[in-house]
Amino acid sequence: MSQRITYTNQVGATLDHVLASTDYSSLHIIADENTATLVLPRISCDAAHKVPPIVIPAGDHNKNLDTLSQVWSALAEQNATRHSLVLCVGGGMVTDLGGMAAATYKRGIAHINVPTTLLGAVDAAVGGKTGINFNGLKNEVGTFTPATDVIISTCYLDTLPLEQLLSGYAEMIKHAMLDNHHTFNALTANKPSFNQPEVLLKQVETSVNVKNRIVALDPHELGLRRALNLGHTVGHAIEEIALKRAKPIPHGYAVAWGLVTESVLSHILLKFPSNDLHRLATFVRDLYGAPDITCDDYPTLLDLMRHDKKSHHGEISCALLRQCGDAVVDNTITDEDMKVALDITRDYMGK
Amino acid sequence: MSQRITYTNQVGATLDHVLASTDYSSLHIIADENTATLVLPRISCDAAHKVPPIVIPAGDHNKNLDTLSQVWSALAEQNATRHSLVLCVGGGMVTDLGGMAAATYKRGIAHINVPTTLLGAVDAAVGGKTGINFNGLKNEVGTFTPATDVIISTCYLDTLPLEQLLSGYAEMIKHAMLDNHHTFNALTANKPSFNQPEVLLKQVETSVNVKNRIVALDPHELGLRRALNLGHTVGHAIEEIALKRAKPIPHGYAVAWGLVTESVLSHILLKFPSNDLHRLATFVRDLYGAPDITCDDYPTLLDLMRHDKKSHHGEISCALLRQCGDAVVDNTITDEDMKVALDITRDYMGK
Repeated sequence: MSQRITYTNQVGATLDHVLASTDYSSLHIIADENTATLVLPRISCDAAHKVPPIVIPAGDHNKNLDTLSQVWSALAEQNATRHSLVLCVGGGMVTDLGGMAAATYKRGIAHINVPTTLLGAVDAAVGGKTGINFNGLKNEVGTFTPATDVIISTCYLDTLPLEQLLSGYAEMIKHAMLDNHHTFNALTANKPSFNQPEVLLKQVETSVNVKNRIVALDPHELGLRRALNLGHTVGHAIEEIALKRAKPIPHGYAVAWGLVTESVLSHILLKFPSNDLHRLATFVRDLYGAPDITCDDYPTLLDLMRHDKKSHHGEISCALLRQCGDAVVDNTITDEDMKVALDITRDYMGK
Repeated sequence: MSQRITYTNQVGATLDHVLASTDYSSLHIIADENTATLVLPRISCDAAHKVPPIVIPAGDHNKNLDTLSQVWSALAEQNATRHSLVLCVGGGMVTDLGGMAAATYKRGIAHINVPTTLLGAVDAAVGGKTGINFNGLKNEVGTFTPATDVIISTCYLDTLPLEQLLSGYAEMIKHAMLDNHHTFNALTANKPSFNQPEVLLKQVETSVNVKNRIVALDPHELGLRRALNLGHTVGHAIEEIALKRAKPIPHGYAVAWGLVTESVLSHILLKFPSNDLHRLATFVRDLYGAPDITCDDYPTLLDLMRHDKKSHHGEISCALLRQCGDAVVDNTITDEDMKVALDITRDYMGK
């Protein structure tokens, strides 16, 4: 995978430089309603202001075939050729869908990602996964097509509500746990540096590097990359049960709680150190509060976990940790162990 | 590009062998209405008869997003996972669309092609192009994703009308011209061996090898691969004018006439030998007859050529030959030269 990542809060100048060093026939910008008005005007890059952006509706529920078709049509209307370049400016929804549009338009044209959310920066925009939801399933169709360039910044995060910043931060906690004890301790030593863009940018760089080291070893998610699912078996189930109740919660909140539950399982099954578990649980409780679940929800939660994409033969499967930096993928979890871990999670969270 | 091609009229046994040596969790067959009834029952492979095929409507006009969505849904209904395998049995429409479905379902699963038309065998099924038509444009969206295996046979060609066999044969003539003088002479020395499957299979193998040598040098069609467009700038225009008149002609007929016109241009501009031109023109006239165009159609034809995918800045562009086996891509053609070449083509064809 060839992907150049630049960490900078001088986005316009960097984009100028990237575009000057790229061979393309025309530039096409994809943004959503929010980033088109809140972020695009702040990117001081002449080339990016010469073309009208292709503006798509915001939100994961619009990450679908209709929106993808609109982008294909818009690229054709703007006379994009096989040598054109797509610039995706937005969160994960924009980089996922815009990346898929580029990956398939005329059998694939290059794209650049400028993630504008913390979650996008540390997760969706890097690594090469593109896709849309289809038939009610998340990322059911897509491709593995890395953006040629990703320009990662923290200077536009002031456009986001705290809740969305915290959502991205959960993935950073996950990456820190997958990295090593030192990174984990450093990230959980203080509250998030959301109002210090340069400090945060350094932490984002560390976080993306962890992800990229794992992705490089397994670009098509056939094995080791599944370590990146840490926290997500339980997290997705918590996210989905909230959605079923029409009380959706941000993805990262669910992941944060999922990290606690799967660290409890890691402690029970793989002797993950209790002081790290305690440190994580306290940090998550202080930032994210408690999930809205009771033991009455367990049957539904377990059922959702059994139907997770990562599940095999209807068994619950989690990535777990022996210790920070030492992941074991594809652990089969019994219902009993999962219930115990959920109990302990709720205790920790004070619920 | 890693693609194994097997030339055999023992398709069932070969498929058994390929499937036995492939690691996959479940098999999913894509066929169209014709191949599902005329070809599938003739493939003696147990694994292929254990699953109900995903049957799509036949015809290039169904190579669209609706049909692609149906295939994605059907794969999900059949519980295809990331480790499943798709088997495309059909002509170019089935292998193009089925290949794209496989290339994008859950970000890409493997697929095998069993082309059942001559055109599919020598062109669509090999080389890795997948795609669908979109917004009235042919192959507007798609991917470069080679089938892991292609099983090429000539034993099912008895299910096809002569017209469709001749359509595929035109691409074989093109490949022979791109190969060398010897291959060109051999292929045009006799009438096509449509009723001798083993002789034809050898010729198909030679033809595919020519294509693959060119594709290997330029997998993403950035330069040299455009030599494969020989005959297609003029051919597409003839095909489209026929479509505008609601008198569609088979793709290969248009390509055959396009080969003659572009060989005339090759003779005028690059000294392509007149005896080869004459040999080609006579062979094409005897097999394909004359195209239904007059000099009144020239303005429309030239306009269509200027809007061809291969055109740059509205100029007419053709791949031409110095001699058989020596192609020059991206030749800009003046209106005057094109009109002369069309005149000479019509003379040759006796129209």
